[in-house]
Amino acid sequence: MSVKEKLAHRAATVESFLGACLKGRDIPERLLQSMEYSLLAGGKRLRPVLALSWCAMLGGDSAKILPFGASLECIHTYSLIHDDLPAMDDDDLRRGKPSNHKQFGEATAILAGDGLLTEAFVLMTEAGLKQGLSANRVLRAVNVLAQAAGSGGMVGGQAMDMEFTGRAGLAPLDELRRMHAMKTGALITAACECGAVLSGVGEDDIDNAREYGRAIGVAFQIVDDVLDVVGDEATLGKPVGSDEEQGKSTYPALIGLEKSKELAREYVDRAVKYLEAYSGDEQAFLTELARYIVDRVY
Amino acid sequence: MSVKEKLAHRAATVESFLGACLKGRDIPERLLQSMEYSLLAGGKRLRPVLALSWCAMLGGDSAKILPFGASLECIHTYSLIHDDLPAMDDDDLRRGKPSNHKQFGEATAILAGDGLLTEAFVLMTEAGLKQGLSANRVLRAVNVLAQAAGSGGMVGGQAMDMEFTGRAGLAPLDELRRMHAMKTGALITAACECGAVLSGVGEDDIDNAREYGRAIGVAFQIVDDVLDVVGDEATLGKPVGSDEEQGKSTYPALIGLEKSKELAREYVDRAVKYLEAYSGDEQAFLTELARYIVDRVY
Repeated sequence: MSVKEKLAHRAATVESFLGACLKGRDIPERLLQSMEYSLLAGGKRLRPVLALSWCAMLGGDSAKILPFGASLECIHTYSLIHDDLPAMDDDDLRRGKPSNHKQFGEATAILAGDGLLTEAFVLMTEAGLKQGLSANRVLRAVNVLAQAAGSGGMVGGQAMDMEFTGRAGLAPLDELRRMHAMKTGALITAACECGAVLSGVGEDDIDNAREYGRAIGVAFQIVDDVLDVVGDEATLGKPVGSDEEQGKSTYPALIGLEKSKELAREYVDRAVKYLEAYSGDEQAFLTELARYIVDRVY
Repeated sequence: MSVKEKLAHRAATVESFLGACLKGRDIPERLLQSMEYSLLAGGKRLRPVLALSWCAMLGGDSAKILPFGASLECIHTYSLIHDDLPAMDDDDLRRGKPSNHKQFGEATAILAGDGLLTEAFVLMTEAGLKQGLSANRVLRAVNVLAQAAGSGGMVGGQAMDMEFTGRAGLAPLDELRRMHAMKTGALITAACECGAVLSGVGEDDIDNAREYGRAIGVAFQIVDDVLDVVGDEATLGKPVGSDEEQGKSTYPALIGLEKSKELAREYVDRAVKYLEAYSGDEQAFLTELARYIVDRVY
């Protein structure tokens, strides 16, 4: 199996959990439709897969932490719905379909986002109360995710991004790095960390998970910027060159295309180092997954 | 001390916790300003006070659960920010000041709401990890709050309210009741329940807290509707008669003014019954608080 197939295989478990998780809840019909419209619109399910794989590699029972994987996807999806709103990035399309507010109207889209974010915490605490996991570990995992998703993480990163967009000239590299670390890096990092925390291992292993997540998070973002210059629209999901057109601060704009590619590779090498202490199928998969991120641009 | 003074006295502890809780976090400056602008804009702090008083009355250490009180206020504040948005109720004023989006723009207001909602879960899990509370009880309390705040609670209620507004004619009484139970009742109920859960008591006491919360939640909403007809603008914070003007479905519109007042009193009597098993200062306060809700309209 290729790494892409392995990723899809693991994502399928997450997908079926997501498809069922809102059923049976007492949610007003149209709101539920709107939430599921975005939650079940596909995607690689990278964050849940990272959490499950780290948990499994470290000896945990990844089936028990599926609700945490799903909650990562709820948080990721809510952020896309709110980012697409007219007051934010004003995007009419998401994954080739009308964005949530285009389909359901702004009010419902805002509420669908709010609902998905809150649902993440329902799912995690429910699992914590029912799955026989350590309550202390669950609390810590929820804390890790909340920190990563909140104003010191993803929400803060989006706020910085909005400020950059309104500003004349390119944001300098250190601010760009901080923005990305918050906007996209924090949740990817939290996914890995939370998988480790819930597997029940000690601090050294948790540190490795966090550092691996951080490194692939940076690599992932650089590659996204590079793909905006060299990619094709089909894999990208948006017009090639749109960042440059909008005068966006990106890695290629700040350090050039070749240097960006090199830097992405360096971060992937760094990520793989944090896997050296482990072995087995999940270790192989997490290694391939890190490499796959960069290979997309070669 | 009058019940109003007692409420203010208890609220002061919450107020100072709220004033400090975002300090020291790594939040982009403007986003932080926007979050604190609404979080520290005053208000009765009813929900936190309910949680603290139920916890104290049942023998718990209310100082330890201050972060849960604060998180209730974060959730309540975020809901006000999002409800005021142009796509929702489009309100320019909140507590006599420009609403959040009028002051900071829509994008920042959406993010400030998202940030406050997420911060609630940071505060609760942090307290759970540091305050020496039972991790299991904390998980349960977080679950209670998340359920109440989410698409099966507050968010769902707002979605229903938006649907009513777009509809011709008044919504029938049973739908109005369900909408209010979700939109405002759920969080008030959760405040009481969560105070009881964290005090460490058994299921009977938790049931009493939940039922007390449910009953005052209904009374509170009826009184709000009544005040819109008979109140003065200063205590109400919005023009008298605005509900009727907007053709809103309210208790007075559906069952008449006198019947509404009677019904509110019935619900308060019901609430007070759930306090009969207890005694002491907090019991007296929670009794007075329930009566105070209705006395506002007499």
